[in-house]
Amino acid sequence: MKFRRSSRLVDMTNHLLLHPQHLVSLSYFAEKYDSAKSSISEDLAIIKQTFEQQGIGTLITVAGAAGGVKFIPMVGEEEASEVVKELCEVIANPDRLLPGGYLYLTDILGDPRIVNKIGKVFASIYSNHEVDVVMTVATKGIPLAYAVASYLDVPVVIVRHGNRVTEGSTVSINYVSGSTKRIQTMVLAKRSLKEGSNVLIIDDFMKAGGTVNGMVSILEEFNANLKGIGVLVESEGVEERLVDEYISLVKLTDVDVKEKQIKVTVGNYESYLKQVEIEDEMGEEE
Amino acid sequence: MKFRRSSRLVDMTNHLLLHPQHLVSLSYFAEKYDSAKSSISEDLAIIKQTFEQQGIGTLITVAGAAGGVKFIPMVGEEEASEVVKELCEVIANPDRLLPGGYLYLTDILGDPRIVNKIGKVFASIYSNHEVDVVMTVATKGIPLAYAVASYLDVPVVIVRHGNRVTEGSTVSINYVSGSTKRIQTMVLAKRSLKEGSNVLIIDDFMKAGGTVNGMVSILEEFNANLKGIGVLVESEGVEERLVDEYISLVKLTDVDVKEKQIKVTVGNYESYLKQVEIEDEMGEEE
Repeated sequence: MKFRRSSRLVDMTNHLLLHPQHLVSLSYFAEKYDSAKSSISEDLAIIKQTFEQQGIGTLITVAGAAGGVKFIPMVGEEEASEVVKELCEVIANPDRLLPGGYLYLTDILGDPRIVNKIGKVFASIYSNHEVDVVMTVATKGIPLAYAVASYLDVPVVIVRHGNRVTEGSTVSINYVSGSTKRIQTMVLAKRSLKEGSNVLIIDDFMKAGGTVNGMVSILEEFNANLKGIGVLVESEGVEERLVDEYISLVKLTDVDVKEKQIKVTVGNYESYLKQVEIEDEMGEEE
Repeated sequence: MKFRRSSRLVDMTNHLLLHPQHLVSLSYFAEKYDSAKSSISEDLAIIKQTFEQQGIGTLITVAGAAGGVKFIPMVGEEEASEVVKELCEVIANPDRLLPGGYLYLTDILGDPRIVNKIGKVFASIYSNHEVDVVMTVATKGIPLAYAVASYLDVPVVIVRHGNRVTEGSTVSINYVSGSTKRIQTMVLAKRSLKEGSNVLIIDDFMKAGGTVNGMVSILEEFNANLKGIGVLVESEGVEERLVDEYISLVKLTDVDVKEKQIKVTVGNYESYLKQVEIEDEMGEEE
């Protein structure tokens, strides 16, 4: 069946959006639409231009026999700050404060559309980091981890608290919760993470960083490499932070549970987004 | 800025795919692209035709001043059986059998691309059911629930086992696990589900149905309405099934943990997909 350009553009856009980071050969499209590769190239040029203009991402062309085109989802600085600004406004409601200085985020993390937007921001930041797998800890970080992983086109690995794991043999570690100073256990099924994997840790909330630190210890047990740590919300006012390098979108300061007060500001992500853009301009990735 | 048709088609396709089930007014597109509504209508006709031909879904046009266009993700019978066939093949590996007759599904549920495909199948089946929210239980059902919810454009609510919940006041129920006959507890934060919501329950695995049944009991506590139950894998050979109406994609029969044998067949979803198509043909939904 012959396809007209207009139909090709619609179907190619759908295909590329569904397969981020994935090399699609020109022949695949040429055969699917029974069209010349030159026409396909023209289609891709239109798509690339529109994706870039609209802040959807970019297309990277790989030349040669094994070549093709790859969709890289990207969020521009402007769009990212819009997402974060929106988040800050929603989060700044003092009714969200829970006992222990925790924050009610369930409604935000329960909305797939918001979660997808946040996921795309993290994926943009980490798209050059050769991530093989996204790791998170049950339960609240899971949706976010999936959204990031979708855009990076990698699998998700879920670490569990406690021992309710029915997945065969496991590796468990003890860690000290940074805020409560209690010793806790974290478990990962042995077959769920390959040795030597490059891992991006994603979580919804970080105070002292005990949980994230626990995941870092698990990585060591699997001889895996830490490629980055992304948290949606970090809470300041902790005596001693257990984790050094991480990226946060939103930062809580002046948390006063008694007085029900929180101050919400933008996290440290901005400097990292700029780094990505500078690297791109220097053409290090192409 | 004026947009050419080709750019409009790419950007509109992206916008519609990102906002399933959501009414977008023609004026939104007309203003964004500085184009006449008649041109936008022609664009939408092209997109609709391509979406339908390629099994992406359909566009529904709502006439009138408050009208516009809505993208409904749909999986055709053929595509659905391909997804399910692929799943059956992957699942049929006896190494997946875990103690207690459970099944190792972590790798499948950890792959966002597979999870998205499964999510789209369930969303197609339940797209006419006026679902307000997708409910699942921690941990393994969460990714699937999000994928379904994304395509239905509704939020997700996560019920937890035990009492480790930091989300303010909660409602908890006791239920009897169908397989182990033990009494267990299930908890849901009060503010996470509105009274009278229409709920679709999604889970990864069902044996006797104790867990699903527990969620149904929670719904009653919130005066919520059950709109459907979708499970990825059901396991046969249970003396007494606690749940009647559900849809499964994959069915395990002849599970023999000792001999490490499983037989995997297609679940009961096919009859439901056919129902959807018959309803569509009768035009009940438009």
